[in-house]
Amino acid sequence: MLGFVTPAMVIGVAEAGGLGSFSLVASSPEEARATFAEIRRGTSRPVNVNFFCHQPPEMNAAGVAAWMSRLEPYYAELGLDCPEPRPMPPIPAFGDIQCGLVEELKPEVVSFHFGLPAPDLLDRVRRTGAKVMSSATTVEEAMWLEESGCDAVIAQGVEAGGHRGMFLHTDIDTQVGTMALVPQVVDAVKVPVIAAGGISDPRGVAAAFALGASGVQAGSAYLLCDEANTSSLYRTALQRVCDHQTAITRIFTGRPARAIANRLVRELGPMENDAPCFPLAAGLVSPLRAASEALGASEFSPLWCGQAASLAREGPAAKLTAWLASGCPSNRGAATNA
Amino acid sequence: MLGFVTPAMVIGVAEAGGLGSFSLVASSPEEARATFAEIRRGTSRPVNVNFFCHQPPEMNAAGVAAWMSRLEPYYAELGLDCPEPRPMPPIPAFGDIQCGLVEELKPEVVSFHFGLPAPDLLDRVRRTGAKVMSSATTVEEAMWLEESGCDAVIAQGVEAGGHRGMFLHTDIDTQVGTMALVPQVVDAVKVPVIAAGGISDPRGVAAAFALGASGVQAGSAYLLCDEANTSSLYRTALQRVCDHQTAITRIFTGRPARAIANRLVRELGPMENDAPCFPLAAGLVSPLRAASEALGASEFSPLWCGQAASLAREGPAAKLTAWLASGCPSNRGAATNA
Repeated sequence: MLGFVTPAMVIGVAEAGGLGSFSLVASSPEEARATFAEIRRGTSRPVNVNFFCHQPPEMNAAGVAAWMSRLEPYYAELGLDCPEPRPMPPIPAFGDIQCGLVEELKPEVVSFHFGLPAPDLLDRVRRTGAKVMSSATTVEEAMWLEESGCDAVIAQGVEAGGHRGMFLHTDIDTQVGTMALVPQVVDAVKVPVIAAGGISDPRGVAAAFALGASGVQAGSAYLLCDEANTSSLYRTALQRVCDHQTAITRIFTGRPARAIANRLVRELGPMENDAPCFPLAAGLVSPLRAASEALGASEFSPLWCGQAASLAREGPAAKLTAWLASGCPSNRGAATNA
Repeated sequence: MLGFVTPAMVIGVAEAGGLGSFSLVASSPEEARATFAEIRRGTSRPVNVNFFCHQPPEMNAAGVAAWMSRLEPYYAELGLDCPEPRPMPPIPAFGDIQCGLVEELKPEVVSFHFGLPAPDLLDRVRRTGAKVMSSATTVEEAMWLEESGCDAVIAQGVEAGGHRGMFLHTDIDTQVGTMALVPQVVDAVKVPVIAAGGISDPRGVAAAFALGASGVQAGSAYLLCDEANTSSLYRTALQRVCDHQTAITRIFTGRPARAIANRLVRELGPMENDAPCFPLAAGLVSPLRAASEALGASEFSPLWCGQAASLAREGPAAKLTAWLASGCPSNRGAATNA
């Protein structure tokens, strides 16, 4: 939920008994410190900081040019000059700088997406006392995460909005639904399993616990809460989306992620091969998005969205969290926004 | 589960309190009468007969030739002569003959896949007193089925093995997981909702009820039961399959269906466009399957399989049904094999 979580949302979730989560993937050290301080001022409860563990991409001029040629008609339609093929500023993977921030800020929980960092970095994180978790999209990934030292595994079913955490597998055709994934992961690992994907109301929370999960992660549900940094265009799209109107697509960033199947997704095809590696694809889509949004349209915007987003209730994050937690058996376990 | 259900399985499920289900799609009237009589001798409990409602395909010689050219290397590898392009004997859609059988045999429940038959045929079915149900893969399909007179809707999540029931939508990229689909369908229709997809143990059953379902449908779970007409090759494949080793493919029949991603699926690509319309694609794959199975391999066989098949317990169908039903809240509701 990079970009959409605010300190107020994290505080609201944490104070309601959930694990408030936020990403420092795209933050400078100064920004990270300021964000963290603001959250610590608002709550003394545990919080979760999230980082990405992708392989930084190699710049490939021919690949970027191929992508540009696919996008040229849209640039023309919007009256934009085609930019020189260039990468966008890279999204940093978890490295020494980020690890230093964890050592300095000492969040209670550190979560990763796209696998885990190198063992020496992971050791440094663990020595801060932080609990470590990461997302698995298959049983094999869950077992790998447990063996690598995760304290909990997030079983991310195919319904989930945003980026697939997949790191051992690359084939989206064989990605697994939450109903099937969670019990198989629960059977395969000893650490607690957090269910994610298609959970946006107390029924989903109750179902996840019935499957053997020890907690749930809700993402899309929080995009409509009062504190979310969600544009009005995005909010409108989320309020209107139907169950069968999202798709897993790599056109917005280069990695598979579930978003509303808007015009760009439909016309290019969700898994268009020409999109360069994560996160380079985003560099050339961003100008289209900006020009289109200025005209009041979201047909070129990455509208990250899970398949059950419309089940969530609007309102303050704390109220949403308490509502979700009402699905926990005997009020056990906790909801988390991430 | 066409071809894998036996009268003994139906009797076992029914006597254990489930709704025993079987297909008469491929049966002649004589075979249908014999099967039905055998079941009625074994149980006096309600049973469910299933039919297909697909559009019968038009024979397209060029399309079949294109498909043949994709399969030629496999014919060569297996030392088979390429057959003349010809359709397989068509699988009949529900029509006057099938409707006559329903009027004669009077099953308590009639279920359809791929939509519903024409209104006059549906009226005839309803006048027998049978309860009618069909599968929905989206909220829109569920609402259509309710408006068209279904007494219950099967919400078929993307985890389900076998053919997708989709009939208003054709895009598999936007198909919905069970966790997200069931509560949204429950909210959209007034008739009872039966959850299907990824449910192979009592945890899945409990989760489905938590989502608001009034019953569950388990298919893959029954493929390993003692009474199933499952070949030893198929059984072995089911016993070994992992969560992420199935895919929705149209190469075996022409319609999207979840099967184990064996060699033919992987090499052709699961949604290969050259495969002709349902059920014509099957005609040219069958010789490969037969030749390969004779060599003890299942790499050309349609191994229908949901994403949670491995959770099921082997044993008699009645015992499996009781075990699944133990997941129902207060033993409410019922499991069905289909």
